[in-house]
Amino acid sequence: MQTPRPADPSAEQLFESACGHAREDRLLASVEALLGWDEQTMMPPRGAAHRARQAEALATLAHRQRTDPVQGERLARLAAGPLAAAGPPAVRHAIRLLARDHERNARVPEKLVGELARTCVEAQQAWVTARAESSWPVLAPWLETMFRLKRELASCREPMADPYDALMDDYEPGARWRDVAARFDSLRSSIVPLVQACTGAARRPDDAILRRDYPVAAQQDFVRQVAAAIGFDFERGRLDTTAHPFCCGVGPDDCRITTRWDVRWLPTALYGVLHEAGHGLYEQGLPTEWYGLPPGEAASLGIHESQSRLWENLVGRSPAFWEWCMPLARRSFPEPLRDATAADVQRALLAVRPSLIRVEADEVTYNLHVMMRFDLERAVVHGDLAVRDLPEAWNDRFAQDFGFRPPDDAAGVLQDIHWSAGLIGYFPTYTLGNIFAAQLMAAAERDLPGLDGEIAAGRFDGLLAWLRERVHAVGRQLESMPLVEQATGSPVSERWLVESLRRRYGAAHGIGAG
Amino acid sequence: MQTPRPADPSAEQLFESACGHAREDRLLASVEALLGWDEQTMMPPRGAAHRARQAEALATLAHRQRTDPVQGERLARLAAGPLAAAGPPAVRHAIRLLARDHERNARVPEKLVGELARTCVEAQQAWVTARAESSWPVLAPWLETMFRLKRELASCREPMADPYDALMDDYEPGARWRDVAARFDSLRSSIVPLVQACTGAARRPDDAILRRDYPVAAQQDFVRQVAAAIGFDFERGRLDTTAHPFCCGVGPDDCRITTRWDVRWLPTALYGVLHEAGHGLYEQGLPTEWYGLPPGEAASLGIHESQSRLWENLVGRSPAFWEWCMPLARRSFPEPLRDATAADVQRALLAVRPSLIRVEADEVTYNLHVMMRFDLERAVVHGDLAVRDLPEAWNDRFAQDFGFRPPDDAAGVLQDIHWSAGLIGYFPTYTLGNIFAAQLMAAAERDLPGLDGEIAAGRFDGLLAWLRERVHAVGRQLESMPLVEQATGSPVSERWLVESLRRRYGAAHGIGAG
Repeated sequence: MQTPRPADPSAEQLFESACGHAREDRLLASVEALLGWDEQTMMPPRGAAHRARQAEALATLAHRQRTDPVQGERLARLAAGPLAAAGPPAVRHAIRLLARDHERNARVPEKLVGELARTCVEAQQAWVTARAESSWPVLAPWLETMFRLKRELASCREPMADPYDALMDDYEPGARWRDVAARFDSLRSSIVPLVQACTGAARRPDDAILRRDYPVAAQQDFVRQVAAAIGFDFERGRLDTTAHPFCCGVGPDDCRITTRWDVRWLPTALYGVLHEAGHGLYEQGLPTEWYGLPPGEAASLGIHESQSRLWENLVGRSPAFWEWCMPLARRSFPEPLRDATAADVQRALLAVRPSLIRVEADEVTYNLHVMMRFDLERAVVHGDLAVRDLPEAWNDRFAQDFGFRPPDDAAGVLQDIHWSAGLIGYFPTYTLGNIFAAQLMAAAERDLPGLDGEIAAGRFDGLLAWLRERVHAVGRQLESMPLVEQATGSPVSERWLVESLRRRYGAAHGIGAG
Repeated sequence: MQTPRPADPSAEQLFESACGHAREDRLLASVEALLGWDEQTMMPPRGAAHRARQAEALATLAHRQRTDPVQGERLARLAAGPLAAAGPPAVRHAIRLLARDHERNARVPEKLVGELARTCVEAQQAWVTARAESSWPVLAPWLETMFRLKRELASCREPMADPYDALMDDYEPGARWRDVAARFDSLRSSIVPLVQACTGAARRPDDAILRRDYPVAAQQDFVRQVAAAIGFDFERGRLDTTAHPFCCGVGPDDCRITTRWDVRWLPTALYGVLHEAGHGLYEQGLPTEWYGLPPGEAASLGIHESQSRLWENLVGRSPAFWEWCMPLARRSFPEPLRDATAADVQRALLAVRPSLIRVEADEVTYNLHVMMRFDLERAVVHGDLAVRDLPEAWNDRFAQDFGFRPPDDAAGVLQDIHWSAGLIGYFPTYTLGNIFAAQLMAAAERDLPGLDGEIAAGRFDGLLAWLRERVHAVGRQLESMPLVEQATGSPVSERWLVESLRRRYGAAHGIGAG
């Protein structure tokens, strides 16, 4: 065992056994992750039915292993013992979190776990068809099942808690929807006028330059260079193509990211990769000696998203980044960039334009997409909205926030994979990630005075080292709010995000400091 | 359950439970298969250590599930019951084979299974380095371990059997090394003079045409068309690139084949794909309603190889095949094939040339490579040869069979992945496959009088239907020898292979009928 050794020999032994067991749990979970990655990237079209059965079998086994009463007893003894009270911090956190996870999992019946795993694969397949055909009835029964199963899961895990909080806890431990909603309302009250100011501005950025012909082969080469430059280690990872970009940690030295390609819109691939590579840097930066245990795990999806958003938006859309990146881009795309300067490209990247699809949204309107999903899925979980009424509720809310209605469900309620993949309570972590990212970046800029110059020179290691130390090294020892507070010295607030958006987008749209 | 229902209701219930359990076993094995495929095709370089741990954890779990005493008791009761005596044939075979597999597996300790799984991943990584550096000492200690573990496995499984037979049984159930050796000796006595006649012939085929510049992108397109034409279903499978081509069945509708590319040697990719697609047709032709049970499994690796060899050599190198294929090839490769006829290409494909590397060997000398490995690995398993003496023994035997010594171990004892992958007792199935293929093809030609004309017209479905009915539909209900006898109407004999080689290679080398 490579984890720090506690003093009490019998407690030490018990701790080692518990860690060994937890690492086995993690191994199985990592096999499940590989199945999921393969399903999205490689699996032949007709392989889905068997994949659903594989996922169910593996989830059932993993659950049985994870909820082994022997491990439960070990953890209960450890939690009541001297290590939990006075061991080294990482050991204390490991015991507390392992015991907590075990309890939560042990309350879930094996059958429900298997059913959820199988339904996730099957419902995602239905979603692919539903979206392609813009046919809500294809997906609706699957979402009925999925929301029912997830509500059941919530009531097993945390019978006394609000069911939405119980679900959100899987992605953002400790988060409560009332707090999140309050932050989002505050953010919304700043973003709505900013969007109006940007879209009404006389001098809006022209993004025509990004819509020229960018050959995909050249894009593939270019984005790999960019990902490697910011520190993504291709010896410990890979990049593939999928309909929806994602990042999947298969093991401590095996992190896989994906993107997609649009020959007439450079940002799709470039910012897809910067985003996923940001996730990848976090995965590759977690303490490998704690792999499989809470100190070696991500703190939350909000923290994960803060890493992706920081690299994608706060680094990747900055003037300094384009000062460095422009010569590289010009070598890859001599024709479309023949008459462009770094400043032209960078300003084009900041165009604000309310649009239908979340994953193609600009940085400012993006949060409106997220808040809308947060409100809708919460209403379903709370029983205030029926699944069958989702399309209409979606379109009404969209019209209210964006000023026009989606032309069809493919561009509306069917656009995201999340609900069919069982990811309910997940959406709010996107905007939490934006909030965390802005606060972290402000602190990094304060702590690293030469940062802009470093980025302009293509040196990203100073920023990465800061993130490694303040965020990655912590693992899951802290929940997201105290983690960000510890990393930045200030309680979490959305004001850094508001300031950052106003400053950068105000400038790009010539509307002053907002 | 979709399998035929036996009459006795209580026996039926028991049989259904046993089948359900066996299907779960197979699901886990199919996850192991996916891990193996990913390891060869997709895994990042540094992912191997974690993959070894995943493989070990999964193998251990799968073994525990597979050897569950409850299932053992079910199978024992079924084997002694009315269904085993008088049920429908597939049910009888299923009971007999499930009971046999269970017994064999139950004798193996879990620890050994995990150790073997982990060592397979680690030793293969060592092999990659050893071969790249032509360094025997890098691999030797891993092979010591591997042969030790496999001997241990043999003695657990079949304590009273010859250890080599016990190992070979995993790949070729029922085969005995003395019978195999006798067949190989007979074959050898015909092949050695044929090789001499071919290499000494005055009119040897000129294969210069195959060494021209065949752009890889065009090859990729071409071989996919060929694989699809012979019946490989890309909706139920895929094709990737690996250093060593293979076929991996991940599920009933998910069969993955691989090949490699040589811009200056067209046969590498084309015959790699025809070979692996031949395996794939067998996988895709197994009865899906019996998936996970013996009637839905491959009979043996020899039978598997008979399918790949039949398509690769007996179809793919025939004049009829090239009559169909030439226009397709010319569209893909207009420049290198500008002055070539179908007959030129087909004859070039039959050049016999003793060479160092098995996987690049011509169809005639190929079997000499296999027999040599069969003899060497058997000597190690039987304790007649030490692992450390393998390189010298290899080189001596090679010089004896081929007339020259390998220049280094990379081109000698290090060339094959098999031993490092734990595949000991596997090599003889290659030549058994050639024997079966020739006998099956002779019977198919007898039963399908218009076959040559069909192939020349690009219609492969008649031959495929014959193989589906005679071979694929049988699954594992028969061992290889009775299966081939039933399919062809004659006891297995190497004489069809000898006749086929003499006829085809004699003609190509202008040396009469041998």
